[in-house]
Amino acid sequence: MSHQEQLTRYCAAFVDELARAGVKHVVVSPGSRSTPLTIILNHHPSIKVWMNIDERSAAFFALGISKAGEPAALLCTSGTAAANYYPAIIEAKLSRVPLIVLTSDRPHELRNVGAPQAIDQIKMYGDHVKWFQEMPLPSDREEALRFSRVSARRAVSTSQVQPSGPVHLNFPFQEPLVPDLTIEQLWDGGLINEGRFSHTPGSYQLENEQIEMLAKLIKSHKRGLIVVGPQTDDQLAEKVVCLSERSGYPILADPLSQLRTGSHDQANIIDCYDAFLRDGAINEKLCPDVIVRFGAMPVAKPFLLYLKKMRPTHYIVVDESPEWREPTHLATDMVYSDPVRLCSELLDKLSTDQQDSSWLTLWRNINQTAKQEVIDFIDKAHWFEGQAVSELLSSIKDKEAAIFVGNSMPVRDLDTFLLNQQNKVRTMANRGANGIDGVVSTALGVSAVTDNVFLLIGDLSLYHDMNGLLAGKLHQLNATIIVMNNNGGGIFSFLPQAKEAGDFEQLFGTPTDLDFETVAKLYHMNYKKADSWPAYRKACIEASAAPGVKMIEVQTNRADNTEKHQQLWERISESVRSMIKKDVHDE
Amino acid sequence: MSHQEQLTRYCAAFVDELARAGVKHVVVSPGSRSTPLTIILNHHPSIKVWMNIDERSAAFFALGISKAGEPAALLCTSGTAAANYYPAIIEAKLSRVPLIVLTSDRPHELRNVGAPQAIDQIKMYGDHVKWFQEMPLPSDREEALRFSRVSARRAVSTSQVQPSGPVHLNFPFQEPLVPDLTIEQLWDGGLINEGRFSHTPGSYQLENEQIEMLAKLIKSHKRGLIVVGPQTDDQLAEKVVCLSERSGYPILADPLSQLRTGSHDQANIIDCYDAFLRDGAINEKLCPDVIVRFGAMPVAKPFLLYLKKMRPTHYIVVDESPEWREPTHLATDMVYSDPVRLCSELLDKLSTDQQDSSWLTLWRNINQTAKQEVIDFIDKAHWFEGQAVSELLSSIKDKEAAIFVGNSMPVRDLDTFLLNQQNKVRTMANRGANGIDGVVSTALGVSAVTDNVFLLIGDLSLYHDMNGLLAGKLHQLNATIIVMNNNGGGIFSFLPQAKEAGDFEQLFGTPTDLDFETVAKLYHMNYKKADSWPAYRKACIEASAAPGVKMIEVQTNRADNTEKHQQLWERISESVRSMIKKDVHDE
Repeated sequence: MSHQEQLTRYCAAFVDELARAGVKHVVVSPGSRSTPLTIILNHHPSIKVWMNIDERSAAFFALGISKAGEPAALLCTSGTAAANYYPAIIEAKLSRVPLIVLTSDRPHELRNVGAPQAIDQIKMYGDHVKWFQEMPLPSDREEALRFSRVSARRAVSTSQVQPSGPVHLNFPFQEPLVPDLTIEQLWDGGLINEGRFSHTPGSYQLENEQIEMLAKLIKSHKRGLIVVGPQTDDQLAEKVVCLSERSGYPILADPLSQLRTGSHDQANIIDCYDAFLRDGAINEKLCPDVIVRFGAMPVAKPFLLYLKKMRPTHYIVVDESPEWREPTHLATDMVYSDPVRLCSELLDKLSTDQQDSSWLTLWRNINQTAKQEVIDFIDKAHWFEGQAVSELLSSIKDKEAAIFVGNSMPVRDLDTFLLNQQNKVRTMANRGANGIDGVVSTALGVSAVTDNVFLLIGDLSLYHDMNGLLAGKLHQLNATIIVMNNNGGGIFSFLPQAKEAGDFEQLFGTPTDLDFETVAKLYHMNYKKADSWPAYRKACIEASAAPGVKMIEVQTNRADNTEKHQQLWERISESVRSMIKKDVHDE
Repeated sequence: MSHQEQLTRYCAAFVDELARAGVKHVVVSPGSRSTPLTIILNHHPSIKVWMNIDERSAAFFALGISKAGEPAALLCTSGTAAANYYPAIIEAKLSRVPLIVLTSDRPHELRNVGAPQAIDQIKMYGDHVKWFQEMPLPSDREEALRFSRVSARRAVSTSQVQPSGPVHLNFPFQEPLVPDLTIEQLWDGGLINEGRFSHTPGSYQLENEQIEMLAKLIKSHKRGLIVVGPQTDDQLAEKVVCLSERSGYPILADPLSQLRTGSHDQANIIDCYDAFLRDGAINEKLCPDVIVRFGAMPVAKPFLLYLKKMRPTHYIVVDESPEWREPTHLATDMVYSDPVRLCSELLDKLSTDQQDSSWLTLWRNINQTAKQEVIDFIDKAHWFEGQAVSELLSSIKDKEAAIFVGNSMPVRDLDTFLLNQQNKVRTMANRGANGIDGVVSTALGVSAVTDNVFLLIGDLSLYHDMNGLLAGKLHQLNATIIVMNNNGGGIFSFLPQAKEAGDFEQLFGTPTDLDFETVAKLYHMNYKKADSWPAYRKACIEASAAPGVKMIEVQTNRADNTEKHQQLWERISESVRSMIKKDVHDE
């Protein structure tokens, strides 16, 4: 059979099985070496090809699609193109997002011999992918077609099984590279069992005695906490709320835990711990004996410091995957179990609700006092960055939405200002490696498959992935980008480096003086500068209703922002301290 | 001693030795973990810190500084920041450019435990760096300070010894991170031999008998060629020209060989082979017995195809490093020797000039005929991309300059339209991996240490590294960017994929419709659109004289461009064929 027919059938088998395994979205960057897969992917009836020229943005765009729940694949040509995928691959690995990375390569005779666009692509992402496979040269032998199919299936399965993450397949192709789309029964080569193939992954579960022991521990300790860090399983909220009721443990819910918004009971959900745990005197009153933690480590540094100071006798870390997400080295038990299942099983053993509620009440009261300060602070309509979160939430209070937040300041402001609410808002961020890179593309990737997406991002992070904006224009996406423009790196003002006054602006502040209205013009985005909160709310409401990618700019001041945050935290400390004092007095 | 003093002395020893080893430029991206090195680098009297927010651009910017002859280092914070360096590191490795990559890292207890901004940085660039070293935690023990110094020295030496390339040092730092600049005798810790340390690298050289054999081979074969691919050694031109005179071998000089411009004798330098070797009938007349090749593989694909067809009995590849830059697998001898030295040694053995010059004359005549067609074609002032090279060269004919060309079309147009000239123009490109990424930043890095830099780049490549433009504004650089805007990927129109009409524009052409005047405005660049060659020449002359980064846009059409190139090649074929026929007839 001809080279072209072999090439075509081999690639078609791979692409068809990718589709059968549920991949509907492939983000492709233009190139020559990738021609056979590009053309065949675009020809497959159930795959949508998203062209994205800058491979760095392309990879984050695919990450966003995957984060939104649709498994996505990537394809690029040989050479440094593939190296541009590296940041997003690392983020996918650490945040456990499935990603199928396909790179095309020069054939073996053109590797490491000075041929153009040839780099060493074998295991080029090192340990940052879950699985690497060097593919053979195309062939249409029955075994080769079946191997091509199984490789696609295995790539999808491996990327999805816990811990989810990126996989990398490298395809060498010899010229000529153009496939023949007129071949009959293009999609049928190498079919396994007439196309019937299923994937039945198990999950980590505990034995009955192990559950018993955990339940016994909970029953025997009243001062306990449930902590839920960043996680994406929508089923966890209800279960954890029940666990809280039965155990009498309050729930410290990270802004990315998906617990602060939704129709579940939020009475026991502590949403202001980020603010009040900053105070040492308050910490003293809140010393726990048991902590049961789900999800990744919470965003809030005050929680980390509280944990280190409190050193609870029992600190139980629950993980669905056998990894070690515990940076304090204080865990007393690593539990590998599916969290939803573990909660269900524990609930069976904790059949009645906790009667003595003084511990829970204390947390709820403190949280309520802190929250009232947050609400009062917002009501005074200060012009500072944190307010942008509250005002956005109030502007979309009737609609489901997804809010994507940048590192470093927006995610912290989300922590402080996303208060419990019944309206479901999905919260997202790149919290695997917490980079400021790729945020625009990840959010736009989310918007490719999700409605009503808002991105809250700082000016440096927006600049870093400005190329990502092109996707919005080329693919007619719908999203609202709120840029908090404090002209530089806002987070550094909160660090000790800020006191190095001489070099600070040059080395850390790094103002860019970019004009974001011009950026908006370049990418054909509707642009609004908000200079008051009513104007901002109006812009958010209008943006939410209009098609296209819109930009709302909020200009703030780094020094002023730091000061306002400090003020708020001081007020919260004061109020909570006096509340505690009054409580003690009342007793 | 305090943590702060240990941190400071340890970093100061490293930074000071980096400076003593000749590093004057460090490109730093803002971040927290890198604080100690950032502040100390900025404090060192002989080091200039270039802040560059986007690490991908930062790395290419450092590559550019290094390509221009000044060894450069890079520094970034922990996390995906470091992954953004990957494309430039790979380019540096393949194009043999020294690069000292410093990444800061979380200390060991915060690695792989879910701590923020912590990724696995150990050997994260795999085999794409020449050397990796994990640094110890800071200490001011005498041995630790000396090790810190020696590591800096070794990093610089290793990056520079042939084959030059990137090295990676990873620095774990514990908090607090702010160094103490008030420490006395800050730069003195761990000094080796009171600061006297030298680096005496040898080079590959041949034994006398080996030279004799090569000389004998050359003497006994009249039909030989010298081929000089991309290389940067300015001393090679004179030597190779002498070798050509003594051997009677014409020199096929790549546009990046530094042979087509300069004050050396250019009579034997063949500058139009890219055009006339496309013709099979012409090839037949030019069958060589010996090829001696210096530098990397030439850019011209017609040369590669000619080589494969001719299969010369002796194909000798000279390399200063023991590598294997030979993609045709037809080499009959790999010679590891310093090229300039090898030429000198061969010249000693080839004491008199070659008398029978018919072979050389044939090549010179064909080249002259082809060149006349190129000149005539240019004189007719067609509006197509290749002309931009000729017109630029003529506009700067009295001044030394550096021309940086993008992959894929500009470097090919440089090959066709850079004709031999006495005015020295340094030609540069990223030809290690031939990526379209990082080109803006590399060229601006060159402009940071070199005068009169012109960048000739396509619109896709400019878009890919648009973030690189910020450096021009922040650091008040001087350079001229000529963007050949054909709204998409021009190179693909020359490939077989172009016939896949249905999908071609979507999958390969990928027009972005970006308005480059808006891009220029965003980065405060003076902008001119050239719509005639007189206007273009005027813009080039003005840009060369004015400060700042300027942009000149030339709008072209991809289909038309392909057609014009084809026309030129056909004319050259015709003229050369009829010249050959006439020659035969005259005999």
